[in-house]
Amino acid sequence: MKVVVNLKAYPCNPVEVATAAREVSDESGVAIAVAPQAAHLQRVADTGVETWAQHVSAVEHGSHTGSTLAEAAADAGATGTLLNHSERRLKLADIDAALDAAERADLETCVCANDPDQIGAVAALGPDAVAVEPPELIGTGTPVSKADPDIVTDAVAAAESVDDSVPVYCGAGISTGEDLTAAQDLGAEGVLLASGVAKADDPKAALEDLVAPL
Amino acid sequence: MKVVVNLKAYPCNPVEVATAAREVSDESGVAIAVAPQAAHLQRVADTGVETWAQHVSAVEHGSHTGSTLAEAAADAGATGTLLNHSERRLKLADIDAALDAAERADLETCVCANDPDQIGAVAALGPDAVAVEPPELIGTGTPVSKADPDIVTDAVAAAESVDDSVPVYCGAGISTGEDLTAAQDLGAEGVLLASGVAKADDPKAALEDLVAPL
Amino acid sequence: MKVVVNLKAYPCNPVEVATAAREVSDESGVAIAVAPQAAHLQRVADTGVETWAQHVSAVEHGSHTGSTLAEAAADAGATGTLLNHSERRLKLADIDAALDAAERADLETCVCANDPDQIGAVAALGPDAVAVEPPELIGTGTPVSKADPDIVTDAVAAAESVDDSVPVYCGAGISTGEDLTAAQDLGAEGVLLASGVAKADDPKAALEDLVAPL
Amino acid sequence: MKVVVNLKAYPCNPVEVATAAREVSDESGVAIAVAPQAAHLQRVADTGVETWAQHVSAVEHGSHTGSTLAEAAADAGATGTLLNHSERRLKLADIDAALDAAERADLETCVCANDPDQIGAVAALGPDAVAVEPPELIGTGTPVSKADPDIVTDAVAAAESVDDSVPVYCGAGISTGEDLTAAQDLGAEGVLLASGVAKADDPKAALEDLVAPL
Repeated sequence: MKVVVNLKAYPCNPVEVATAAREVSDESGVAIAVAPQAAHLQRVADTGVETWAQHVSAVEHGSHTGSTLAEAAADAGATGTLLNHSERRLKLADIDAALDAAERADLETCVCANDPDQIGAVAALGPDAVAVEPPELIGTGTPVSKADPDIVTDAVAAAESVDDSVPVYCGAGISTGEDLTAAQDLGAEGVLLASGVAKADDPKAALEDLVAPL
Repeated sequence: MKVVVNLKAYPCNPVEVATAAREVSDESGVAIAVAPQAAHLQRVADTGVETWAQHVSAVEHGSHTGSTLAEAAADAGATGTLLNHSERRLKLADIDAALDAAERADLETCVCANDPDQIGAVAALGPDAVAVEPPELIGTGTPVSKADPDIVTDAVAAAESVDDSVPVYCGAGISTGEDLTAAQDLGAEGVLLASGVAKADDPKAALEDLVAPL
Repeated sequence: MKVVVNLKAYPCNPVEVATAAREVSDESGVAIAVAPQAAHLQRVADTGVETWAQHVSAVEHGSHTGSTLAEAAADAGATGTLLNHSERRLKLADIDAALDAAERADLETCVCANDPDQIGAVAALGPDAVAVEPPELIGTGTPVSKADPDIVTDAVAAAESVDDSVPVYCGAGISTGEDLTAAQDLGAEGVLLASGVAKADDPKAALEDLVAPL
Repeated sequence: MKVVVNLKAYPCNPVEVATAAREVSDESGVAIAVAPQAAHLQRVADTGVETWAQHVSAVEHGSHTGSTLAEAAADAGATGTLLNHSERRLKLADIDAALDAAERADLETCVCANDPDQIGAVAALGPDAVAVEPPELIGTGTPVSKADPDIVTDAVAAAESVDDSVPVYCGAGISTGEDLTAAQDLGAEGVLLASGVAKADDPKAALEDLVAPL
């Protein structure tokens, strides 16, 4: 299982969460990445944790003021990136071009989508992973694996029918070890988390609880 | 073969093109649809030609000022719609929702994409057809079937590998009967045209030339 | 006072509302325009009512699939257009270019904005009118003139300080004659309405009530 | 005069340019800020140069994956930000909200616009400065002060008529000391530069040449 902790624009201390994630990852052997704001990538990467961008732009080097250049994210220490998160939806052509940009910068990619049909669509673009996150469950604390387990199994089937080498992660509402194993049982090979860790009083304890069953 | 004539925002007379298209379609038996500006849908439909929207919005009835409601397009006489044209690229989630909107309004759908990877992606969303249009060839007069025939065959293969019931149209640079049969030979089941007809001195003659080989 | 009835994407009968608006306008002498979906412009204009577009694109004639060309809206009978409605917010540069497009097509313009600062900004672009519509009040039935009258007076002051020839309309929550006179007392020279008329059981009665105090 | 060096997504070494800018600023007494990619803010700020973001998002802390949070930019060392650059045009309402976000994070603001009308519009939103940059001159090496000096004087007049406390910067094609003094003579109180410094073989020499006449 892969765990990606998305810090969004939360008022958390990114270094504290990153340090906790690195420690729990080291202790448990579970791959845990932290995705901070672009401006925080370097200080997060300096903790030694696996560091992801939340987004990279569909551009190459050039006149692109205000873009998030994949190469700059990589420079700052990122080794992966989310794309098309439901809070940062992209045009189809830009998902494709951002995947190219990420590849040029040696960033691992996980493309998010809302439902199984869209998971099939993004799987066709050749990402390293896809993640199904029903927008209506994000931030609710109700895990998709409990609220609507068919979404996960259907997403796994949709990805498989298009490209059976693309692992499916699942997100939205996941916070506990039980949620994580439920996702795994449904065929997910990773999870995206956000508020469950980033807003926890004790992010390290939250992550330890999360990976305990693995 | 299906022929869709996209009038874009050209300064042509939409009724003249529509009338020509209806006549050539009646005479030749080839299905020819005309896609005018939304504000021209009704007068185009009144000619009796098959009428398509150039775009519909990813919305249902409600508070959506300035949208292009699928139901309103249908009311005005449209029976189909293009989606995600390279001049009107959509977010992936909005292609999916616009397909739902079109279905609710009984509109036939053709989703455009730039290249074979993206064709695979949009085929996964269940449209009635997909269309490959390399943006760099649009309006050039050089047909994709001549400039880069592999794009068409790869697009046909990409769509087939995802959903073998989805026909592939091809666009960009097509204007003559020779272009059309070349596209057909590469596996395309339809073509999108624009300037070749809309900007022709004699749209009817242009359409007659186009369908002559069929 | 000018009254603009925005039909949005409501499931109303645009011809019924347009006919009612024409009759009430004729009987009362109050200028009432109806803004339907682009695909309904022609049948609304055919009733003889003053017809507005809900939006026009920031483009000229050309390769702009899926745009709403100002010239096409005018062709279909529109004589005015809303721009930058809070449900169709535009980039600043596109408001400017859409105003140019509307002027080329002889469309009267009313640019919407959320608050007095933005009203000052859009007044600087030279529209025929501006409209202040606090998004949080749209569709509530609570008129801005009651919920927060300072917004209207501040908007009037902001427009005046930039260009004192630009009339200010106000929208959001307006449905009765009392709302309309309250707006007028605060300095508004027009009102935007939507659900209060479009969703009324009897649109003509709603409009008669609206203009009764004038 | 204020000088802002926009590194866009250029393949330059941001630390080298930043170090040069700090040295030339120290030696000349001219305020020079450097605006790198968000992911490079921290290493640029670590050089001691005045550091600006190229863009911040119109959001507060919260669920905004892939945003550029003003507070995160400030954390990383930014003390100012560009907004609405022609390569990152914003909706009017988002310029307004991004100005609020920048203010919350104590970032100085400079809002870009294409022409004098739009300069008047953005001046009405209360930024610390505005910058006129005709998009057709960006990257050409032909300074706006030479290609079309009226744009600068008209922009200064437009800003003044709306709010005479807002300084006007000018950009597009500026690279030499002569360009800078020409801009100053037209009423500009600052300049935006990009390729002239970022792509120079010797950025320090380019900056020394730029500020020599001051």
